[in-house]
Amino acid sequence: MKNNLIFRQLMDLESSTYTYLLADKNTKEAILIDPVLEQVERDKKLIEELGLKLLYTLETHVHADHITGSGELRKALGSKCILGSGTTVDCADRLLKEGEKLKFGEFEIMAISTPGHTNGCTSYYLEGMLFTGDVLMIRDVGRTDFQQGSNDNMFQSLNKLFSYSDETIVYPAHDYSGHFSTTIGEEKKFNKKIGGHSSKEIFTERMLAMKLADPKKIKVSVPANMKCGEV
Amino acid sequence: MKNNLIFRQLMDLESSTYTYLLADKNTKEAILIDPVLEQVERDKKLIEELGLKLLYTLETHVHADHITGSGELRKALGSKCILGSGTTVDCADRLLKEGEKLKFGEFEIMAISTPGHTNGCTSYYLEGMLFTGDVLMIRDVGRTDFQQGSNDNMFQSLNKLFSYSDETIVYPAHDYSGHFSTTIGEEKKFNKKIGGHSSKEIFTERMLAMKLADPKKIKVSVPANMKCGEV
Repeated sequence: MKNNLIFRQLMDLESSTYTYLLADKNTKEAILIDPVLEQVERDKKLIEELGLKLLYTLETHVHADHITGSGELRKALGSKCILGSGTTVDCADRLLKEGEKLKFGEFEIMAISTPGHTNGCTSYYLEGMLFTGDVLMIRDVGRTDFQQGSNDNMFQSLNKLFSYSDETIVYPAHDYSGHFSTTIGEEKKFNKKIGGHSSKEIFTERMLAMKLADPKKIKVSVPANMKCGEV
Repeated sequence: MKNNLIFRQLMDLESSTYTYLLADKNTKEAILIDPVLEQVERDKKLIEELGLKLLYTLETHVHADHITGSGELRKALGSKCILGSGTTVDCADRLLKEGEKLKFGEFEIMAISTPGHTNGCTSYYLEGMLFTGDVLMIRDVGRTDFQQGSNDNMFQSLNKLFSYSDETIVYPAHDYSGHFSTTIGEEKKFNKKIGGHSSKEIFTERMLAMKLADPKKIKVSVPANMKCGEV
C-alpha cells in the first residue's frame, strides 16, 4: 500500500457491515465504500477530523441487510452516489461499467462487474486491494438465493476475481467471525465453496446445500437502497 | 508497512477485543498480540492455513474483560507467553522490560512500558505501528479505576506514546464503535481525554468524571489471566 494512501476499515456492529474509507493524504480527496445509514454521523465526523473531501460513495451492490448512508452523505457533503452498471438504481449519480475508473487524488479505483449474489454486484480494485462486497467473502461467498442471485454468474465472478494475484488483499462487505480481510491466494485454497477445486458442479452443489433465512431487513432495505437510502 | 509483513487484525465479537497476527512472509515466523481464549480454534486454524510458526503470544496487560488464549496456544503450538515486566505473572515465559525486543523473521517488535490502566501495561512498536492495549484507545483512553490504575501514570504513558510520529498507526485492544485503528496525530488532536491540551489537571478531571461499572468478567478474568488462561 502506498504511503500516501489513507485506509480505514470501519464496521457497523449491528449488521456486521464493513465500510472502507480511502483517501489521498496529499490532496485529501476521499471515497467511502458501502457506508451504512446508522453510521453516517460517525463517518462524517471521521472525514471532518481527517480534513478530507468526500468525492464519492461506492456501493458494491443493492444491499438487503442494511440501508446505505450514501444519500445522506451526498446531502451533507456533496459526494456522488456510485453503483455498478448492472443495478438499475435511479438515484445514482453514475453507474460504473466494467473497467471504468474513478479518480481521487493520485489514486484510481476500478470497477469489476461481478454478478452472482445480485445482478449488479460490482467489486472494486485499488493498489493491490479488492473490495468484493458479498461476492468473495472470507472463507465463504455470498448467497445466491434471492435478488437475481445466480450460481452460474457467481462461479464466473469468483473465477474472475481469482485471476488477480495470490497476494491481493480481499476486503469483503461482511464477516461474522471476527476476520477483517483475506487474500486471493488463501481463498483459492480454503474457501468453503470454491477453495481447492475448479468444478462448477461441486460449487453449485455446495451452494444449493445452504439453507438460509431471508435477511431480517430485506423488505425495507432493498427498496430504500434503490433510493440511495433517502426514504 | 513492509511487503513481507503479514498483518491481520482479528476481533472477538463478544468482548470487542482486537487480536493481531503478525508474521514474516518469508520465514513464516509469527507472533500474536492479545489472543482470546474463545478464539483459540479460529486463530490456530488461520495460523495453520497461512503455514505460520507461532513463536510468541504477547499480552498488552492482564485483561479484566476476557481470558487470554496464550496458555492454550502454548500447549497446542509451543509458542511462548510474553508479558510486560510490570506484571507479576508467574506463568509467563518472559517478562519484557522497556525497550526489549522480540525477533520474528526479519522483524523486531519492541516493548514500551505504559502503566496507567494497570501497573504492567505494555505497548508494542513495530514498523510504524503501535499496539497500545487499553492505554491509548480510539478517541479515548483506558480506565484507571481498578487494577492498580493511576491517572498520573496514564498521563505520563500517553505522553510517551505521543512522542512517536503523528503518522504512527495505533492499534488498540478494543473499540466499541466500529473503528479499527487511529494515528498518534489524530489522538493528539481529538482524543476525548487528552486531545488538544497538555494539562494533567484537565486530563485528571476528565478521568475522574467517568463513572463505569466493573467489567462483568473481572473476577474470573484477572485470576485466570495470571495463569495465562490455563485454568
